[in-house]
Amino acid sequence: MDKEIIPEVVVARLPVYAQKLNQFLQEGRAIVSSNELAEQLGITASQIRKDLSYFGGFGKQGSGYDVITLLENLREILNLTHPWKVVLVGVGHLGSALLSYQGFARKGFEIALALDNNPELIGKVISGVEVRPVEQLEEWVKAEGVRLAIITVPASEAQSVADRLTEVGIRAILNYAPVTLKCPDGVHVSDIDPVLILQKMTFYLE
Amino acid sequence: MDKEIIPEVVVARLPVYAQKLNQFLQEGRAIVSSNELAEQLGITASQIRKDLSYFGGFGKQGSGYDVITLLENLREILNLTHPWKVVLVGVGHLGSALLSYQGFARKGFEIALALDNNPELIGKVISGVEVRPVEQLEEWVKAEGVRLAIITVPASEAQSVADRLTEVGIRAILNYAPVTLKCPDGVHVSDIDPVLILQKMTFYLE
Repeated sequence: MDKEIIPEVVVARLPVYAQKLNQFLQEGRAIVSSNELAEQLGITASQIRKDLSYFGGFGKQGSGYDVITLLENLREILNLTHPWKVVLVGVGHLGSALLSYQGFARKGFEIALALDNNPELIGKVISGVEVRPVEQLEEWVKAEGVRLAIITVPASEAQSVADRLTEVGIRAILNYAPVTLKCPDGVHVSDIDPVLILQKMTFYLE
Repeated sequence: MDKEIIPEVVVARLPVYAQKLNQFLQEGRAIVSSNELAEQLGITASQIRKDLSYFGGFGKQGSGYDVITLLENLREILNLTHPWKVVLVGVGHLGSALLSYQGFARKGFEIALALDNNPELIGKVISGVEVRPVEQLEEWVKAEGVRLAIITVPASEAQSVADRLTEVGIRAILNYAPVTLKCPDGVHVSDIDPVLILQKMTFYLE
């Protein structure tokens, strides 16, 4: 499968499908129709079928999807059948909140290293993770073969942190700093800037 | 202008353009070309020109954009020429971090009310905002005519909070709870679930 031919908006919807299927599974459901999935997610059933057709379909016309099978297929497609280690850089208010968030570990993302340059934070243990000095970034990321990072440093420091991370093998960055990062080809960056999202919504409010 | 005919992906890029133009402005730049803007943001110049053409263009072929004029136009289009009040529901780790984040106020979003149902949190003041009981939601949102909300409650409570918010006039919700909310037509919901974003990126990592 050539991953680059699949539109990124399609890829972005797959985890949303998996999240909802997981909820159906917990409710004891064995089969779900694309119509019901669509209704629950606020998108069209034809969009769901079209998205899944990139990967082979998974459903027979009229009989709906087997919840467990579709969920397992999505987890394989998204490479979620094994856990991922994550490095977090920046343990301020937001970084601390993310370290305390149990949702990452529950979904197979282990924040295994937390880094900061504030001497008052170094050595502190948050949710079982000890905060270490940023100097240890290169050594640890290389030694552990980590590919995922979360950046929660101030905007002014984010690009240099991203440069250091990608230099030692990080290939996906979740960026909370309010700045657009420039990273080499092959590195996937997703920005989470709540202000930009609010600004997108105020467009519709007048 | 019929707002609904403009693709949402276009609207989502406008705040990104404004953010970058603001940076150029702070660096003392008066004029910027679509090529330079494109290069800085990692998208194509033709995409930028096409996005802006929905709103009239703002640039002359070959002469680039006037930074201040384009920024002011974008701020008007996005309804950012006046401040917005925001209600935040859920003052746990993440809600507290968001309350402490100065980036909202700097961009004209004032978190004017913070609500929680934990008696230990009620009355506590975080970054100048006193945490109040969730019971005050309806009265305050109606009295202040607030249209924007941030939800940082657990997944199990998010839908009922969203229902209460939309019932009293909230029209845009930034949702941090890891669940897909169902809201009435005309209510804009943006989800920020870091796990879903990591899961989208792991697709590309093998």
